[in-house]
Amino acid sequence: MYRFNCDYLEGAHPEIIRRLSETNLQQTASYGADEYSERAREKIKTACQCPNAKVYFLVGGTQSNYAVLDSLLKNYEGVISADTGHINVHEAGAIEFSGHKILTIPAHDGKLDPCDVEKYLNSFYADGTYPHMVRPGAIYISHPSEYGTLYTKDQLISLRELCDRFGMKLYLDGARLGYGLAAENTDVGLPEIAKYCHAFYIGGTKVGALFGEAVVFTDESDGNYFFTEMKQHGALLAKGRILGLQFDTLFTDDLYFNIGRHAISLAMKIKREFTKKGYLTYLDSYTNQQFFILEESKLCELLEKVIIDDWGPMGAGKRLVRITTSWATTEEAVDYLISLI
Amino acid sequence: MYRFNCDYLEGAHPEIIRRLSETNLQQTASYGADEYSERAREKIKTACQCPNAKVYFLVGGTQSNYAVLDSLLKNYEGVISADTGHINVHEAGAIEFSGHKILTIPAHDGKLDPCDVEKYLNSFYADGTYPHMVRPGAIYISHPSEYGTLYTKDQLISLRELCDRFGMKLYLDGARLGYGLAAENTDVGLPEIAKYCHAFYIGGTKVGALFGEAVVFTDESDGNYFFTEMKQHGALLAKGRILGLQFDTLFTDDLYFNIGRHAISLAMKIKREFTKKGYLTYLDSYTNQQFFILEESKLCELLEKVIIDDWGPMGAGKRLVRITTSWATTEEAVDYLISLI
Amino acid sequence: MYRFNCDYLEGAHPEIIRRLSETNLQQTASYGADEYSERAREKIKTACQCPNAKVYFLVGGTQSNYAVLDSLLKNYEGVISADTGHINVHEAGAIEFSGHKILTIPAHDGKLDPCDVEKYLNSFYADGTYPHMVRPGAIYISHPSEYGTLYTKDQLISLRELCDRFGMKLYLDGARLGYGLAAENTDVGLPEIAKYCHAFYIGGTKVGALFGEAVVFTDESDGNYFFTEMKQHGALLAKGRILGLQFDTLFTDDLYFNIGRHAISLAMKIKREFTKKGYLTYLDSYTNQQFFILEESKLCELLEKVIIDDWGPMGAGKRLVRITTSWATTEEAVDYLISLI
Amino acid sequence: MYRFNCDYLEGAHPEIIRRLSETNLQQTASYGADEYSERAREKIKTACQCPNAKVYFLVGGTQSNYAVLDSLLKNYEGVISADTGHINVHEAGAIEFSGHKILTIPAHDGKLDPCDVEKYLNSFYADGTYPHMVRPGAIYISHPSEYGTLYTKDQLISLRELCDRFGMKLYLDGARLGYGLAAENTDVGLPEIAKYCHAFYIGGTKVGALFGEAVVFTDESDGNYFFTEMKQHGALLAKGRILGLQFDTLFTDDLYFNIGRHAISLAMKIKREFTKKGYLTYLDSYTNQQFFILEESKLCELLEKVIIDDWGPMGAGKRLVRITTSWATTEEAVDYLISLI
Repeated sequence: MYRFNCDYLEGAHPEIIRRLSETNLQQTASYGADEYSERAREKIKTACQCPNAKVYFLVGGTQSNYAVLDSLLKNYEGVISADTGHINVHEAGAIEFSGHKILTIPAHDGKLDPCDVEKYLNSFYADGTYPHMVRPGAIYISHPSEYGTLYTKDQLISLRELCDRFGMKLYLDGARLGYGLAAENTDVGLPEIAKYCHAFYIGGTKVGALFGEAVVFTDESDGNYFFTEMKQHGALLAKGRILGLQFDTLFTDDLYFNIGRHAISLAMKIKREFTKKGYLTYLDSYTNQQFFILEESKLCELLEKVIIDDWGPMGAGKRLVRITTSWATTEEAVDYLISLI
Repeated sequence: MYRFNCDYLEGAHPEIIRRLSETNLQQTASYGADEYSERAREKIKTACQCPNAKVYFLVGGTQSNYAVLDSLLKNYEGVISADTGHINVHEAGAIEFSGHKILTIPAHDGKLDPCDVEKYLNSFYADGTYPHMVRPGAIYISHPSEYGTLYTKDQLISLRELCDRFGMKLYLDGARLGYGLAAENTDVGLPEIAKYCHAFYIGGTKVGALFGEAVVFTDESDGNYFFTEMKQHGALLAKGRILGLQFDTLFTDDLYFNIGRHAISLAMKIKREFTKKGYLTYLDSYTNQQFFILEESKLCELLEKVIIDDWGPMGAGKRLVRITTSWATTEEAVDYLISLI
Repeated sequence: MYRFNCDYLEGAHPEIIRRLSETNLQQTASYGADEYSERAREKIKTACQCPNAKVYFLVGGTQSNYAVLDSLLKNYEGVISADTGHINVHEAGAIEFSGHKILTIPAHDGKLDPCDVEKYLNSFYADGTYPHMVRPGAIYISHPSEYGTLYTKDQLISLRELCDRFGMKLYLDGARLGYGLAAENTDVGLPEIAKYCHAFYIGGTKVGALFGEAVVFTDESDGNYFFTEMKQHGALLAKGRILGLQFDTLFTDDLYFNIGRHAISLAMKIKREFTKKGYLTYLDSYTNQQFFILEESKLCELLEKVIIDDWGPMGAGKRLVRITTSWATTEEAVDYLISLI
Repeated sequence: MYRFNCDYLEGAHPEIIRRLSETNLQQTASYGADEYSERAREKIKTACQCPNAKVYFLVGGTQSNYAVLDSLLKNYEGVISADTGHINVHEAGAIEFSGHKILTIPAHDGKLDPCDVEKYLNSFYADGTYPHMVRPGAIYISHPSEYGTLYTKDQLISLRELCDRFGMKLYLDGARLGYGLAAENTDVGLPEIAKYCHAFYIGGTKVGALFGEAVVFTDESDGNYFFTEMKQHGALLAKGRILGLQFDTLFTDDLYFNIGRHAISLAMKIKREFTKKGYLTYLDSYTNQQFFILEESKLCELLEKVIIDDWGPMGAGKRLVRITTSWATTEEAVDYLISLI
């Protein structure tokens, strides 16, 4: 049965498996000091047009989020996030485990509105009791967001300006970054992200890798002791070359971007066909996650033939569903799905 | 140049790579709910003769140590460890990051002597000010230890008795467990470990896996919310099936044990030949790490031809070196090393 | 200039100062092992009709909240709180510093509605991804709330039932408890609080003491290692007798309750007179904090003659103000305030 | 029965009680914004000859130690301490609770030897695996130490030089500072401490106050958000004026120094007379804690008539005892003690 319920159902892009096999018996230095990791770091810095960036490879998204934020924040600082942000909902309190409060602001289609953030900050510092409160030390955004939506370049600039004005860091969670970069009308590429964010990660787990995320610090004052912090957070892989090799592969011959384009083209096809057939989209996503509002009966019917993600009732006998494509989704699977509606 | 400096220089046992390739495009449930993980859990429980054990798969050793200890300990408790214990020396303060003090006792050849532990505990509770001190809530041992030495069954029993008497948990770090199980005259197998320890992990990273450790809780009162704790500690892999598949492979057809036997047989050959040639062993190790005391000049000579691990000066122009074998070490490499001495 | 802006403007009830002076040169055991602390513990257990309770004396409210909640919660658990709860707003992230997430629910007049909590819990456990989220391990309520409102006995019973059903602890922050106990038509006394809450604290700082809060654990399974946890949280006073003596004094001859009655009688007078003059109350408080909606011009006029607490704009040229009485407020001061309106 | 077992047996110096009574009903701003706190801060800065210092008032010693060290240290840093240091032994793991490892070095008479610290640091950075270890970020010393011994000015200078060389902060725990400043032949006064330490606290609890410690940050880059950090660590007193008033009193008319001199003069008398009678001192203390080695039988005899502190067996039927004087010790009590030997 075809599955569209998430974007981490398979192993890795075949090219990655091929290279893991090919290099398997080589002996290399550990903890990321190998040549594959070194090469991957260089390629990522080039792709980001940020030659002085520091690049580290971690295993997963929650791990990256809490290790990086703990590194960026002072002990007494918290992080601003949309209330729907992954760190606020689905990370089992990892941020709080590392001692930091999440300062939530209501999301708009999964995103923070820079105006809301500015209002929050003005009101925070206008309140005479603010020294009794958690100082906002960073802004967390996910791009694409948990709802598949994307920030514009102007929004990134606005958020960065707020960071500069109020002494904060801008951090971008790129778990699905490849699918955001490949979206049709985005004006945000890796160089823009590297320019406006103090730190971010380029997601591998959902974009072709077996697992792995590439954390990038763009500012010379950040991330200088991050190797030790990784170890401290249980986030340092002994055989670092496995991560290096994967990102070396992803950033060779545009593989990372091609993977993105493939998934987006299929996602747009689904969106188009569903819309054509009169299904309502929940919001206007241009990335690999598509959200539709289906009749309960229609959903039941579909679920007998494919696996899609039921996000719960919307009232009036309707339900919200998520359909996800990835590097591994085939044209054939998508056509089959479309044939069912 | 042959390397003997550690046991995580290569990728994974070829059988693991083969199965990763073979299953790569299958779509499975995530976070360890897949059939490979399920099968691996069953095989491990069988090998441990502990049908009610709970088995979880994590990515690395430091991660396993700090997630498990944080789960076993109460907020106000610390963990007893040899001063040479990995958690005390080489984990960048991960245990303290999770809020717990390490209560150190001087090691004997890398091991805790149960008599020392008993003395420590008696003296702790005899001191009227003990409520102002960190309560010992667990004992951490590594088996093999960082120096390749092994606990006897009697020592495990003694440590467990202390745990029962003083309300503590016994936790065993099995980063190199496969090499301990395969040692010549050990009376400690997986069933004994499962019988006497509240929790332990079966190391994969150093024993044939690309990465991964299998954490086992043997007591029904422990580890019941460990899935959430893994997530909270950044230790939950999205594509859990990669871990499950590896341990399924390692626990099929005795692969894990065969890997151990292979490395031990080569380590014993090295020990025999070095001893024959008059080199002093630093301590009597029966596992895959062998420690010798070499003349500085001899070491320099060797280092031009092979890579072995220099552990520093021993006085009088001598140095301590570590030579390590693993699943990937070849007879040919060992013979070459021996030819140099 | 008379001040009504908070309830911790003065030192302590004169009787407390008298006894501190009188006993000053006595030599006593430290850390709460003295006879005054012992006597105070007994009197509090009697007042709570809970002979098996454990009573500890701490210095302040934030300290009590975070030490008690850290004691009640498992590592992976969070605490449910009204979004207006003191722990969520004005404690600088102390709960998160100790590793726990605050799970917020919108407040009604500063209080949690048990129905909202039930809905939250049902929906939490209905979501299949809940093991990726922070487990609710306790409910935090403040009584009186930050808005002076009080829970009814029925509400306490409902919250406790939810705790029993969902495996949680009920914790009550009684920073202003004395003023709640003395409210006119409350059906919640100390015995009810002790019966329905797993833990709570009886506030001293705002109710007659120089400083100090009496933490009460009512369940035999809680708080058994709290002495050590106090020390660990920097919350153990060396000269514990200073806390013991204060609570011994407060719980002798009904002083704690008389203090409450005094402040409430003056607060009710203010409420009556303001209402009579046509001022709007923001909500219906029966405790020592009264909230009124004043014209900006009227507020400016008042602030030239007395100090009251400006809580910010309410739209249409109005502002929310808080007027607070305490054990130290005089009839004369209140009459003067009333003369101004 | 006279007690010499510790220096926090009584309340406060009578002058403090007098002023608490006298000012009791005044209404003041809270959280240290009152005029008494302001005045005390000024007087302390003057006494330290450090006009730009930041001064904060906390409640107790453990609280001060863990709040200040958490403020000075980066997330990944630990603190060097003598193994006998108070933070390592008697603070229930507060430092580890805040996430930091204590890096212990064997003490000499309760003190760190700067040469040992230098050796430790050189060896730390010489080990190629140091990025896997906790970075030393601060040095903790207690002055007087837990054994009554004092650092010399030259030792402070050496420790500070190590801090400057290795990027660390020097922190001094002055729980009994008043008794150190008054020692006969010390060359370390408040100005020297302020000159060489990044932060320290002036102990009040054991030196005349009811409770309270004055934390001083001497460097402009430290302690700038410490108010919020105090709140976060449960260390902010609502009625800050109680702390301010006490330190204002202690730093008026040399009271703090006179208290020290009084206790030292009595301690020296005890030392002299015990030595005269042939009792062995355990080490050469010039402060208010004196350590003697007594026959078990002699100790038993004494304990029937006075309370002194038994620190346990020394072998050969002898025991180590501590005799402590304080601001409250009377000549009469000391003469009585001497009459018993």
